Amino acid sequence: MGQPASLAEVWRGPFQESHHVGHAVICDGSGQIVAAWGDPDAVVLPRSSSKMIQALPLVTSGAADARGLTTEHLALACASHQGAAIHVERVNRWLADLGLDDSALLCGPQVSRDTDLKLAMIRNYETPCRVHNNCSGKHAGFLTLAQHLGAGPDYVDPDHPVQAACLEAFETVTDQASPGFGIDGCSAPNFATTMHGMARAMAWFATSAQRSDTMSTSASRLVEAMHTHPELVAGEGRACTRLMRVASEPVALKTGAEGYFTAILPTRGLGVAVKAADGATRAAECAIAALLVRLEMLDAEHPEVKAFLNPPIVNRDGLVTGEIRPAPGLLA
Amino acid sequence: MGQPASLAEVWRGPFQESHHVGHAVICDGSGQIVAAWGDPDAVVLPRSSSKMIQALPLVTSGAADARGLTTEHLALACASHQGAAIHVERVNRWLADLGLDDSALLCGPQVSRDTDLKLAMIRNYETPCRVHNNCSGKHAGFLTLAQHLGAGPDYVDPDHPVQAACLEAFETVTDQASPGFGIDGCSAPNFATTMHGMARAMAWFATSAQRSDTMSTSASRLVEAMHTHPELVAGEGRACTRLMRVASEPVALKTGAEGYFTAILPTRGLGVAVKAADGATRAAECAIAALLVRLEMLDAEHPEVKAFLNPPIVNRDGLVTGEIRPAPGLLA
Repeated sequence: MGQPASLAEVWRGPFQESHHVGHAVICDGSGQIVAAWGDPDAVVLPRSSSKMIQALPLVTSGAADARGLTTEHLALACASHQGAAIHVERVNRWLADLGLDDSALLCGPQVSRDTDLKLAMIRNYETPCRVHNNCSGKHAGFLTLAQHLGAGPDYVDPDHPVQAACLEAFETVTDQASPGFGIDGCSAPNFATTMHGMARAMAWFATSAQRSDTMSTSASRLVEAMHTHPELVAGEGRACTRLMRVASEPVALKTGAEGYFTAILPTRGLGVAVKAADGATRAAECAIAALLVRLEMLDAEHPEVKAFLNPPIVNRDGLVTGEIRPAPGLLA
Repeated sequence: MGQPASLAEVWRGPFQESHHVGHAVICDGSGQIVAAWGDPDAVVLPRSSSKMIQALPLVTSGAADARGLTTEHLALACASHQGAAIHVERVNRWLADLGLDDSALLCGPQVSRDTDLKLAMIRNYETPCRVHNNCSGKHAGFLTLAQHLGAGPDYVDPDHPVQAACLEAFETVTDQASPGFGIDGCSAPNFATTMHGMARAMAWFATSAQRSDTMSTSASRLVEAMHTHPELVAGEGRACTRLMRVASEPVALKTGAEGYFTAILPTRGLGVAVKAADGATRAAECAIAALLVRLEMLDAEHPEVKAFLNPPIVNRDGLVTGEIRPAPGLLA
């Protein structure tokens, strides 16, 4: 694997305290690399940054329309939500519409990341549920597709028809065979591809509205659902939500575990994939913000952008003790 | 700054998902480098890994003996404790002995990392206090020294006699001028040094029992306090505590923020300093465990060691989805 490039610097006073490296690729709709940092051929698990690909069979199969899913459902299918009330209530209703409940989800429970809900649950001695898992919308989508296909309940089995459909979609949009998968935090298979493959897939999504085949029209609906409901894709305070809200043009942003981040830019016909080699979310957030500033989709001086592009490091007494800075090479 | 070396790999199924690099130095009592990875001349803020140095003036000044401090007090002065009851009660008593309370601490409040206490405080609508801050023992030590010196209450001011004493101790034991400081998470100055300087300082501590000057006998008391009270230096579940307990010979271990870790090995007369360049704690813990296995201070097969040397990655449904592995070059 080629050497990673500088993504972000962590400063404390006059010292660069830490340094993040990684890979980033910007692709156009023809699959060509427009710009790259680090190694475009690095093979990486895109984790939750691939959720819009995992949601594709839900739409292409006709399952979404047969169930009357709205853009809110589709946004949740692509989401790493934070288990706030707005997410949990919608996924619970979705499961009820399928005649199912929390127990049908195979994603494991997760403590809500919504502070108010988390504290209320602790005070009520409530146990976190699977529906609070950030992937519960994706799993509700898997269950919807499984029912539509008449397939069994073990929808995270790599041999299950749902996962076979996900792999086929993944290889189609990345335009290369996947070298395999790892098991994700939510127990579903997560397929590997190169940084170039993932940026190419995001560019394919970005240009999907220009094409009329079923896969492309399905992709276009997912992209629209994501930028129409930024609060459902992540949640208040989160990078995806906040940066989608302040972008100068519609953009679909998606974080992934271990420092992954993707961007779909329909007005530019471009796709972006970022991976912090060390797995740090702070680096991936800084780098994706920097690349969107470079592309003039974000204003570097906007407070919502600075919160990720150049966040202060604030200590426990409220003092600013340092800051994170994007690597200069990303910005221009 | 020279290139960092590989410290730890993060695997998920058949894929290396993330990779941590950094610097590590093992020094002997003469200040010579015994082994090094990455750049020994890299200038780094050692953060809480330098707490035993910051505690040195407390003892050398006579303040500790004048106040009748025990080995428990000295261990807490060197601690990044997790704000459990055993830590909070002792620091509160220490403050009361000084005629002070929580409000004298300048470290800012921190949510307790002890699960039971944290949940109980949330359920009782209690606000985290400064005494719960992982640095409250260090700050109680600063206050003790400030009183002994007849100095004012703003003991984190870089020009305060307490910090002047810390800087003098720091430059003495690292055996080089410090190029400056950053402000730490607890608002105290944190002095910078090279990786070599920090490893040399740890080796100086490791060999302190062989010398009879006041600084050395003071250092020896701090090292003994640390390995006598591993539960006070960090807490249940934490790397410092668990690895000190299972080491084959007495060792003082100290974590620091942003991926720092130090080890003092009195029986070998060696000091170790580790810095994960990206600031990741999981990498620093893995690397320090690997170096102590290399030095035959830890048994690689012991479950308590494997928990940091080669921990499984477990997902939200309890499945093992991957593991962290030390870079092969650290072990042998």
